[in-house]
Amino acid sequence: MPPLPLPPELDDVVLRPNPAVVATVRSDGTPHSAATWYDWVDGRLLLNMDESRARLGHLRERPHISLTVFDGDNWGRHVTLLGPVVSIEPDPDLADIDRLAVRYTGKPFGTRDRGRVTAWAVPERWSSWPLPAANAR
Amino acid sequence: MPPLPLPPELDDVVLRPNPAVVATVRSDGTPHSAATWYDWVDGRLLLNMDESRARLGHLRERPHISLTVFDGDNWGRHVTLLGPVVSIEPDPDLADIDRLAVRYTGKPFGTRDRGRVTAWAVPERWSSWPLPAANAR
Repeated sequence: MPPLPLPPELDDVVLRPNPAVVATVRSDGTPHSAATWYDWVDGRLLLNMDESRARLGHLRERPHISLTVFDGDNWGRHVTLLGPVVSIEPDPDLADIDRLAVRYTGKPFGTRDRGRVTAWAVPERWSSWPLPAANAR
Repeated sequence: MPPLPLPPELDDVVLRPNPAVVATVRSDGTPHSAATWYDWVDGRLLLNMDESRARLGHLRERPHISLTVFDGDNWGRHVTLLGPVVSIEPDPDLADIDRLAVRYTGKPFGTRDRGRVTAWAVPERWSSWPLPAANAR
């Protein structure tokens, strides 16, 4: 799989608030996947979880993710980004989940009484379908 | 996460040819994800890969998957199935990839000169969003 940066046409898919699935590895070494909101900010992926999520424990033990993003306007088109998680921190004022909720729904996050945790990942490799024009030559 | 079987309304999401992502674990213990076609047949998931896919090596080493399926009519709705892969076999006459291609595109698979491999998984656990009616009570 090629290293980052993404070709511009794929960067555009990831920049939009598209449907995505994040993969992590569980304590027993088996894979886990879950649909997720994300944001793509200066080469880093923002994820945010309820503090009770099993995924948070997985990430603390094995701080790597793979994120597959669909082009919501064309399900046959998708991009995957893989890389380490570089920080896992509380989101005490819900700023990060609000950022994601506004991106995806246009308004702040509805649930205000649960702890949230933010993870930032720095993708190192990507793959896509179809191949971008420059690589398909 | 609850054991199978799926509640009927979630079974219906998985029965339809919906967008899905399969998660596997790489040799180095980090997660991998990829968009995939699948079929859901009598409690087993059919997947099929080009014989060159890295994912095939991952599955032989660590025969477990997690599959997240979006409801293509409402991508805020999704189901995840986790479990072991119970067989990995060549698909010499392309019967399995044709089954998936017909399910997703209405016609047999276009590429006839590449080896394909079929994996069957038997999900043991599931999760969903939103929670099914019976569990949300």
